[in-house]
Amino acid sequence: MKTNTHCIPCFLRQANETLDRISVPENKKREILKAVSDAIFKVPFEKSPPHVARKVYEVISELTGIEDAYKKEKKHANELVLKLYPELKKRINNSGNPLFEAVRLAAIGNIIDLGVKSTFNLEEELKEDSNTEFKIFDFEIFKDKLSKAKNILYIADNTGEIVFDKLLIEEIKKPVTIAVRGKPIINDATLEDALNCGLDKVAHVISSGSDGPAAILDSCSREFLDIFDKADFIISKGQGNFEELCDRDEPIFFIFKAKCPAVADDLRVNVGDMILSYKTHRKK
Amino acid sequence: MKTNTHCIPCFLRQANETLDRISVPENKKREILKAVSDAIFKVPFEKSPPHVARKVYEVISELTGIEDAYKKEKKHANELVLKLYPELKKRINNSGNPLFEAVRLAAIGNIIDLGVKSTFNLEEELKEDSNTEFKIFDFEIFKDKLSKAKNILYIADNTGEIVFDKLLIEEIKKPVTIAVRGKPIINDATLEDALNCGLDKVAHVISSGSDGPAAILDSCSREFLDIFDKADFIISKGQGNFEELCDRDEPIFFIFKAKCPAVADDLRVNVGDMILSYKTHRKK
Repeated sequence: MKTNTHCIPCFLRQANETLDRISVPENKKREILKAVSDAIFKVPFEKSPPHVARKVYEVISELTGIEDAYKKEKKHANELVLKLYPELKKRINNSGNPLFEAVRLAAIGNIIDLGVKSTFNLEEELKEDSNTEFKIFDFEIFKDKLSKAKNILYIADNTGEIVFDKLLIEEIKKPVTIAVRGKPIINDATLEDALNCGLDKVAHVISSGSDGPAAILDSCSREFLDIFDKADFIISKGQGNFEELCDRDEPIFFIFKAKCPAVADDLRVNVGDMILSYKTHRKK
Repeated sequence: MKTNTHCIPCFLRQANETLDRISVPENKKREILKAVSDAIFKVPFEKSPPHVARKVYEVISELTGIEDAYKKEKKHANELVLKLYPELKKRINNSGNPLFEAVRLAAIGNIIDLGVKSTFNLEEELKEDSNTEFKIFDFEIFKDKLSKAKNILYIADNTGEIVFDKLLIEEIKKPVTIAVRGKPIINDATLEDALNCGLDKVAHVISSGSDGPAAILDSCSREFLDIFDKADFIISKGQGNFEELCDRDEPIFFIFKAKCPAVADDLRVNVGDMILSYKTHRKK
């Protein structure tokens, strides 16, 4: 999807929050935000929001000299969900429908996002009685495609969330390649995170090569693109990957929580709603 | 107070919303937002946020050719509260403490603001059981200063809200000069609004001369500045006037609802809290 003018203030808010996290002084923040703003308007808005976000974080990284502003938050998120793993596993096994429960948890896990939102409350979302429900739920198509699939590409999103992805991959019981980001950006998962969370025990782990907060296809590696082309179907996690891939024709299941009015409106859902969408249900 | 880097995304959000209200197409919106962004960074951030906001709305007005984007909303707000006037008057008269109730309603009326927030729910706020309460409440000082005052300057804020101001002025029972903006900006009240709402029946009505969303002193008229200097005390309505005047030494009572984290944090209150502050209770 194209970048919307309403994304502009959101990018600048994200930039502000990142600069706050790394304690950049007010004067320097102002200077960096000016550079971020200039960079934003240089990206053609026909490109998806992750293309613009990539520039935003590139400028921040260049001007602060800090390449991985979310290092601590990422480590914390991985550890937090790894600790929950046994309990979540039990919850899936004890549910009447393990695949359904694993898909639901994978969507709930997408709350661990420090881009669009600056905080998250995972415990609240995981409460049995939380009213997290799917507003778009192509589960029958998912089960059908899954039963026939021989190879699946799973495009991961955030740290912490990848432990939920691990649980889903264990229920999928088919060969899965999971692709993480090519370099640190926001709290997105990279190879290091995937290995730390043991994703390599359940899937073939690769880097997409992307240097943005999504699998931005024009920056992905040859290896990733080959798998992307040949997969029987693709699971795409998170709003960033949705924004970048929603106009594609490949058989993609998008699993995520709608995190901003632009995307929610595009899908005719509310902010916070969970989505399992085969291809897309976008307004035309 | 100075402009904060967190104000930047907020200005761009406001610009977006104004452009949406007047149905500017996406491409043109992008171009205007670029110009708005450039203009924002040209204002020294030592200036208060209304200085920056003035530039934002100036650019929008120049590039769209629309001088008064909120004309309809302003007329609607005035009519809405004028209709409520008899009921509000009764509420004040029947309360055990008419002056207190009039001050409270004047603060509640400050919710009618289309700058920082794009919508408001006045009915909800006016419910007898609404938990709108003052977090800073210098009412004793107010009563004391009022008993001794011979002339009061009242700096108004928004359309609709000025009807609440009228009710408060009626309870003040002292000579009041009320100053409105010098030209249309956002949904702020101008001379036309003050006359339409009958403010001239209860006070001496003047224009501050300001072309921004506050009484920006360097753009105010000689007439206004004379009254500002000589008033026994000043009532300043709204967050914009607070942002511009909070560092002044004049005897000013600020009545408003805190509308953004920057201001709320500065006063150690929460967003939405009501304030009656003599001079200021800002963090030093």
